Amino acid sequence: MSDYSTESVDLHRTNKGKVSIECKVPLLTRDDLSRAYTPGVARPCEMIRDNPAESYNLTMRGNSVCVLTDGTAVLGLGNIGPAAAMPVMEGKACLFKSFANIDAVPLCVDVPEGEEGTRQLIQIAKAIAPSYAGINLEDIAAPRCFAVEDALQDIGIPVMHDDQHGTAIVLLAAMINAMKVVGKSFADARVVINGAGAAGTAIAELLRCVDHEADVCVSVKEVIMCDSKGIISPDRTDLNDEKKQLLKFTNRPGISGSVKDAIRGADVFVGVSVGNLLNADDIRTMNDDAIIFAMSNPTPEITPDEASKGGAKVIGTGRSDFPNQVNNVLAFPGIFRGAIDARAMRISSRMKLAAAHALADAVGDPTPERVIPDPLDKSIADKVAKAVRHAANEHHPVGA
Amino acid sequence: MSDYSTESVDLHRTNKGKVSIECKVPLLTRDDLSRAYTPGVARPCEMIRDNPAESYNLTMRGNSVCVLTDGTAVLGLGNIGPAAAMPVMEGKACLFKSFANIDAVPLCVDVPEGEEGTRQLIQIAKAIAPSYAGINLEDIAAPRCFAVEDALQDIGIPVMHDDQHGTAIVLLAAMINAMKVVGKSFADARVVINGAGAAGTAIAELLRCVDHEADVCVSVKEVIMCDSKGIISPDRTDLNDEKKQLLKFTNRPGISGSVKDAIRGADVFVGVSVGNLLNADDIRTMNDDAIIFAMSNPTPEITPDEASKGGAKVIGTGRSDFPNQVNNVLAFPGIFRGAIDARAMRISSRMKLAAAHALADAVGDPTPERVIPDPLDKSIADKVAKAVRHAANEHHPVGA
Repeated sequence: MSDYSTESVDLHRTNKGKVSIECKVPLLTRDDLSRAYTPGVARPCEMIRDNPAESYNLTMRGNSVCVLTDGTAVLGLGNIGPAAAMPVMEGKACLFKSFANIDAVPLCVDVPEGEEGTRQLIQIAKAIAPSYAGINLEDIAAPRCFAVEDALQDIGIPVMHDDQHGTAIVLLAAMINAMKVVGKSFADARVVINGAGAAGTAIAELLRCVDHEADVCVSVKEVIMCDSKGIISPDRTDLNDEKKQLLKFTNRPGISGSVKDAIRGADVFVGVSVGNLLNADDIRTMNDDAIIFAMSNPTPEITPDEASKGGAKVIGTGRSDFPNQVNNVLAFPGIFRGAIDARAMRISSRMKLAAAHALADAVGDPTPERVIPDPLDKSIADKVAKAVRHAANEHHPVGA
Repeated sequence: MSDYSTESVDLHRTNKGKVSIECKVPLLTRDDLSRAYTPGVARPCEMIRDNPAESYNLTMRGNSVCVLTDGTAVLGLGNIGPAAAMPVMEGKACLFKSFANIDAVPLCVDVPEGEEGTRQLIQIAKAIAPSYAGINLEDIAAPRCFAVEDALQDIGIPVMHDDQHGTAIVLLAAMINAMKVVGKSFADARVVINGAGAAGTAIAELLRCVDHEADVCVSVKEVIMCDSKGIISPDRTDLNDEKKQLLKFTNRPGISGSVKDAIRGADVFVGVSVGNLLNADDIRTMNDDAIIFAMSNPTPEITPDEASKGGAKVIGTGRSDFPNQVNNVLAFPGIFRGAIDARAMRISSRMKLAAAHALADAVGDPTPERVIPDPLDKSIADKVAKAVRHAANEHHPVGA
């Protein structure tokens, strides 16, 4: 299979990137100029000054999301810096437009390492908020991504780190349908998540179902998290604060050992880690009809063939050339569309769970080869948006 | 005359602002997605990581300017805040696209008052630099605009506060032609500038011609600056640092008094202040064939009729319904186009002077009613761009 490198470079070079800024109004005559610019433009300015909510009606803000990154965790490439992150952010902007008609503006910022950089990133996001209806944080390394997202939940517009929640929502949708396919219930299931970075943590949090009043709640019997050192357990002395937090709602039995120890007797394996980690024999130690989401890219934790050999019943990956691609393009366009349309001030757990259920429902009758919609199905974003908007309107305060 | 308020509000509300973000590449098939996004996009990212200059070739950065404001000095409305400034920034983005095919991204930021806000604005501009080929600072109040622009001259991409230099460049172009019309020389002229804010200061600095090696240099015999309290003179005790700086190269004779005292015997009056300031009798105290640029908007310092009655020979305003409209749309699109095309690291005095001369030359044979091109003439930006690019390549270091 081509990795599309050469064609991608050609595409980027020929078009000088993928995103353009266009003017929606005519600018040919003196009258055009007087309406779009001075002197006429003074009046819309005054109207927003007097009533800030008008910024959503009179400017691009109402349909605009910032795709903001510091370039610290781009694809599998790691910390490649802001300038090098731009192709991904532009790609994201294209997807926002194409799937949800959102005007998304890529913004790659250069901030220092460590706490000072985290502080600056938070300050920048707060400062730019008046320009946008929402901020999609993107490709920010853990643990910075947690601190940044947390700090931005009360700035009046929805802020979501897609690498955490987009992935978690699509994964949950796929898992809901996979459980139907194998006839198991979340209440009896043991789920093992390998990878305790941005995505793994968000998946665990979504399965934790913090929003207890939510009728869309999933309640998983047991979640075990692993990182590169093995099971995250109370006896480990090397855990940072974020991982200690995870222990509050994962690994209730308090087991320790390797990821292979963790999956013994488990019903679901979720990999957001590294390729070629497991083999068929490992899968055989899981419960019958195991569910495998091996999302490491481009090489999954285990290939679908190998997992199948070990008895897995439903298998998903991050790749487009296998069935059940867990691709967060299924989530983020609709989530922001719904949040914006509801004028929600944040994206709550309830809205995320509603998105996951809408995605799962969109499949109809799930089969082992189809537990999640096709990423190219452009009807999906609208379904997600409707569910998110409904969840926002029902239960959450809305912004200006 | 309509002030276009109602039509402008309709235009903004119907279109929900004026700017949209578009995707330049197809996103219909799995192959499209693989080239524009993962997995293909990893390669352009790596190429930029390994050679940052490639960001200009492989991403939107190469053709993109940020229109950045804090909303502290918007039109004549003053400090209306970032959200309310957006209609102006979007208008600017439309002009950039329409006149110079530049993808301009409006960004309105919320920063505190005082020095902390200035510090934050500088930090934000530095942080976002990897996303853009240039930054057009816009509608930032004096004296903050001076500090911010100064601090950003070495960040590797050109940064210019348009309210200062755009206005100054177009004004200088008009003045060059006006001097030809009346047959006077800059070397013998006394110029009075009323208004010592962003624009007035930039005009004085451009007339000062700091770039002494420049063959395009204008050398004005005498520049007198006034603010709302009168002539900026050494005996004043109320001058802030910026105004004290102005005394280093203005008011060499050391006169004091009101603006009316200043213009007695002057050849040129430049108003960037308030409406209805002067009358025909005042103009009669100036030298013969006086040149008047009364740019206060919407009400000029003196109407063309009244100035003419007082003997003025060439009269310009900021308004589109009188001859000789000094409109900075004649400058900024071409200046940034030229600076970007030259990959210049900053916009030097030489580049500004080259832009002014290109603008003046574009008129051909100037007459009292036509010392500056029509703002709607879309051939102008290209002429300015060529001159700016040439000036940049000839005399200045270029960036990556």
